[in-house]
Amino acid sequence: MNIEKLLKGDKRTLARAISIVEDGDTSILRKIYQHTGHAYYVGITGPPGAGKSTIVGKLTSKLLERNKTIGIIAIDPTSPFSGGALLGDRIRMPGLATKEGVFIRSMATRGSLGGLAQATKNVALLFDAAGMDYIFVETVGVGQVELDIAEVCDTTVVALVPESGDSIQAMKAGLLEIADIIVVNKSDRDGADRIVTELRFVSELRDKSQGWEYPVIKTTAREDKGIDKLISLIDSHEEYLNNTGSFEQARRQRIKLRMQELVEDKIKNHIKKEVIKPEVMEKLVEKIYTREKDPFQSAEEITSSLF
Amino acid sequence: MNIEKLLKGDKRTLARAISIVEDGDTSILRKIYQHTGHAYYVGITGPPGAGKSTIVGKLTSKLLERNKTIGIIAIDPTSPFSGGALLGDRIRMPGLATKEGVFIRSMATRGSLGGLAQATKNVALLFDAAGMDYIFVETVGVGQVELDIAEVCDTTVVALVPESGDSIQAMKAGLLEIADIIVVNKSDRDGADRIVTELRFVSELRDKSQGWEYPVIKTTAREDKGIDKLISLIDSHEEYLNNTGSFEQARRQRIKLRMQELVEDKIKNHIKKEVIKPEVMEKLVEKIYTREKDPFQSAEEITSSLF
Repeated sequence: MNIEKLLKGDKRTLARAISIVEDGDTSILRKIYQHTGHAYYVGITGPPGAGKSTIVGKLTSKLLERNKTIGIIAIDPTSPFSGGALLGDRIRMPGLATKEGVFIRSMATRGSLGGLAQATKNVALLFDAAGMDYIFVETVGVGQVELDIAEVCDTTVVALVPESGDSIQAMKAGLLEIADIIVVNKSDRDGADRIVTELRFVSELRDKSQGWEYPVIKTTAREDKGIDKLISLIDSHEEYLNNTGSFEQARRQRIKLRMQELVEDKIKNHIKKEVIKPEVMEKLVEKIYTREKDPFQSAEEITSSLF
Repeated sequence: MNIEKLLKGDKRTLARAISIVEDGDTSILRKIYQHTGHAYYVGITGPPGAGKSTIVGKLTSKLLERNKTIGIIAIDPTSPFSGGALLGDRIRMPGLATKEGVFIRSMATRGSLGGLAQATKNVALLFDAAGMDYIFVETVGVGQVELDIAEVCDTTVVALVPESGDSIQAMKAGLLEIADIIVVNKSDRDGADRIVTELRFVSELRDKSQGWEYPVIKTTAREDKGIDKLISLIDSHEEYLNNTGSFEQARRQRIKLRMQELVEDKIKNHIKKEVIKPEVMEKLVEKIYTREKDPFQSAEEITSSLF
């Protein structure tokens, strides 16, 4: 692996580095870590059909015009970036992937969710080291992955559509809790003004002491409407984070969480391999199944023997 | 805590036991564990508005008539059982909670999701020990919680509605992968036959070697239509599991996973308290923040010192 080429943003080297890291070899991450910390992380989340990919695509085009470099991570199964769109959405993303200064990576949404969030963070580190100015992470819905990923993003954009009930669903799903900016996309449809009003109302109900109240804007990404405004809001949020010291504080907090995760992972692996060996586990399961033992006492016994 | 009263299903004792367990004291679980293993676990999941609570309510009423006892755990924020319904759904559940032989517990959906799934399993154990014949677990959407909970349920019922696109959404969300029975509820609405056809088509595409092909039925739970059929399908699935040995195998597998979880949890706590003490962590974070160290190497150092 040619680290120099990676740091210069060479696409083929980057692609190879990602494959290696995804296969579980983190040695590259150790080498490049000192070159990270420059990229600005933006999360884009929302229900399927909200036009998240179109927003990301338009943002990317605009930022390219400003000579910025962009890494896109798509973990939304409905995103054309991740190859998951069923209805030919791919047509709406003409050739972004082949442009200079853009790198797109899609991640599988199945399998271990903890693993997915970690893999996303690792790919983001590679993008960061490769000199990307912006890293966009596109996710769908709101599950643990979205929450985990919101945690690593400097700015989280929640995209909704005007359809009735969307604001209530978003609220219930906890989307508004992670939103720094709310976009009502496809705002040429009926009901856009109503949902904007509702969302602003909810915003005002929130605890003011947090400092940043999420702005709510209308976009029609497909027609490029509102995208400049969205970029300027992302800039404003970045400025806000910097001015209040929240930026550094949040990044320190992320390092702490990442450390805990990494240590926990290593210990989990160690337990599976060394502590509860398959044959020991099998005997234990049998005793618990027949109610000769209980799982709580058994877990206690195993761990107390460890430390 | 009067364990005898708990085992007899005394509601007040059960309520107190749940509170104690939720506060983190698992000593009751150790005492009652030998009396568990008799209840049949049924998960009900699906998108908001699919009528899951109504289905659970109707199932419960029917099973009560058959002299069965039922524990309901609601972790769906839109469920009237969990007190989360915004639009007066509560009216549709008249007095189920006060009936003899029924116990309802709602769980918060915010906060640690891992914690939520564990708490659900603990409450289910208490229900089981208290002599409940059936335990219904109602969850919304499909996130890690739903997957975790499907894992502990003997039968998972996925509830959908006829609205267009629902089958594709369900497929994308992975709902069909965990379904043992699919219910198209509110089937008096347009499109019910179409979605049933689609879902049966998908069912046929699946790997036949799995043995059990999920049946797809129409219900209109509010009018009590299809509920008897649903109960007989749950019975059939239970019979299928017993005849094929899958029942015992699955329960052993659950014990194994639970053991791993419990051990991991204990170790995580130990790490937070003893291994990475706050002051050590703080220094480490600072070094990683300034890129003097990297998190991967640091995690390695911590864990290798442990074992």
